[in-house]
Amino acid sequence: MIGITIGDPSGIGPEIVLKAITFKTLPRDKFIIIGNRKLLENLQKKIVKDSTRALTKWRVIDAFENFDYEFGKPQKTCGLASHLQLNLAIHLLKVGQIKGIVTAPVSKTALSLAGFLFPGQTEFFAKEFGVDKYGMLAWSKGLKMILVTIHHPVKEIARIITVAKVLDKIILLNNYLKHYEKIKRPKIGVFSLNPHASEFTCGAEHRITQAIKQAQKQGIKADGPIPADSLFANRLIEYDGYVAMYHDQAMLPVKLLSKGTGVNVTLGLPFIRTSPLHGVAFDIAGKGIANPLAMCHAIQLCYKLTH
Amino acid sequence: MIGITIGDPSGIGPEIVLKAITFKTLPRDKFIIIGNRKLLENLQKKIVKDSTRALTKWRVIDAFENFDYEFGKPQKTCGLASHLQLNLAIHLLKVGQIKGIVTAPVSKTALSLAGFLFPGQTEFFAKEFGVDKYGMLAWSKGLKMILVTIHHPVKEIARIITVAKVLDKIILLNNYLKHYEKIKRPKIGVFSLNPHASEFTCGAEHRITQAIKQAQKQGIKADGPIPADSLFANRLIEYDGYVAMYHDQAMLPVKLLSKGTGVNVTLGLPFIRTSPLHGVAFDIAGKGIANPLAMCHAIQLCYKLTH
Repeated sequence: MIGITIGDPSGIGPEIVLKAITFKTLPRDKFIIIGNRKLLENLQKKIVKDSTRALTKWRVIDAFENFDYEFGKPQKTCGLASHLQLNLAIHLLKVGQIKGIVTAPVSKTALSLAGFLFPGQTEFFAKEFGVDKYGMLAWSKGLKMILVTIHHPVKEIARIITVAKVLDKIILLNNYLKHYEKIKRPKIGVFSLNPHASEFTCGAEHRITQAIKQAQKQGIKADGPIPADSLFANRLIEYDGYVAMYHDQAMLPVKLLSKGTGVNVTLGLPFIRTSPLHGVAFDIAGKGIANPLAMCHAIQLCYKLTH
Repeated sequence: MIGITIGDPSGIGPEIVLKAITFKTLPRDKFIIIGNRKLLENLQKKIVKDSTRALTKWRVIDAFENFDYEFGKPQKTCGLASHLQLNLAIHLLKVGQIKGIVTAPVSKTALSLAGFLFPGQTEFFAKEFGVDKYGMLAWSKGLKMILVTIHHPVKEIARIITVAKVLDKIILLNNYLKHYEKIKRPKIGVFSLNPHASEFTCGAEHRITQAIKQAQKQGIKADGPIPADSLFANRLIEYDGYVAMYHDQAMLPVKLLSKGTGVNVTLGLPFIRTSPLHGVAFDIAGKGIANPLAMCHAIQLCYKLTH
């Protein structure tokens, strides 16, 4: 069984879950939706009309009571509802009732209004399962990138990048590509932090090089540091996976090449966790126009990787 | 007339110039190649055989004497040859013999070996023409992005981003889109520096917002700060141009979407300067396999914008 949270009710999370479950290819007896059935029913009457019949056939577990909320803005009540879903998901994972989890987007502002103080869902799962070596993989069909740093101000990135952190990510990515993507000896490209690699270095490129050398000693085919932009220019994509140093360095190419249908896979946890590679999209929430494809891919990928 | 430098001889510059001039669409009487005819003749015998006839019909001005060099590594002699081309180009621009310049890539390491200490060609042109408000536009057919910071270590970017610098770039881009792309009231999207815009801000997003407000007061349709990655996800590209905060934030999308054929346009100079949006590519230099399309676009765009 796999759990699917609906995320922050005031964002596009519940809408894309409702749209995703209309896709016939999903074996619905393998999933539990973690949210609130009444809330989803109200939403589908309002904006996702063609999912009316789909929902009745899916198992929904109520993580919170139905309540009134406004679309498109962070609210304490919605933050609490998001938090309760995550708590329930963690419980179900711990007791073994679900083996994987797909999470819809949450609002970090709403979560902090509700007293939940984590930079993101990824960090929360890692903490709850006592995992310190984990990573966020930005996944699309043609491009797989693990991030060394995720949610930090840009000015702090250089300081955070250590030999150990880069090496951990190379190993996590190598293991993922071998075990899940079935590539025997994956080729891994490691990005530089600074433009043109070492031309404008502040020391980070030296540490990245050390990590690559240590990975090579362990038999991993790692290569770099490569300037992220030169990788795509003038030649074909030629690595099985990439190690990116920070948020936009991974998100820009993966989102662009996947046309907004990329998936976030958390590596290093004792279960598979996926989520669509986008946020709550408050600007279009409640309008019925959200694209569910990233959520569909997240559900399909979680199913594929757990079976 | 428009000048074309051949760049660092040990990189792919001379090769892509030789390949570009075989394209029949260019009116060759409007161009002067700034480099060395003998060096180009030797190169075409070796690696670019089908350009043999093209070169004889093009005007080449010798900026330096022919000399021996190795492909694919920074050398003092090549740095000096690059520097002499730039000096001659600036002379021809100052006396009005050329109205625009297309520059092939140079190696900053080779230039510094030759005692030329500028972060890039852009900064050198700006200095020589006493211009302090200039910008680098990463240009492709579907995507135009001006950079607020160009060649800096990532950890210094936040500090360098000021209200005045962002405002200058918005104005430069707005003027370019109006005058050259003939858009009456361009819509300009301004990126945030940090992931998710203000969620992980260190103050830069506040300054970016101030700059946007000041631009709006001047009647410019500027919008933001927008997280760079959310811009491309789940929706169509909807701005006429973008202001990116740093190197990779502009280079990744423009290079990806243009498949490595993007052009660098320097805005704010009293003439048009373009160059291919890639470097010397030492790893493939001298092999005859360099893709000349970015150079072709740079030449065509310089011609279009100066006429």
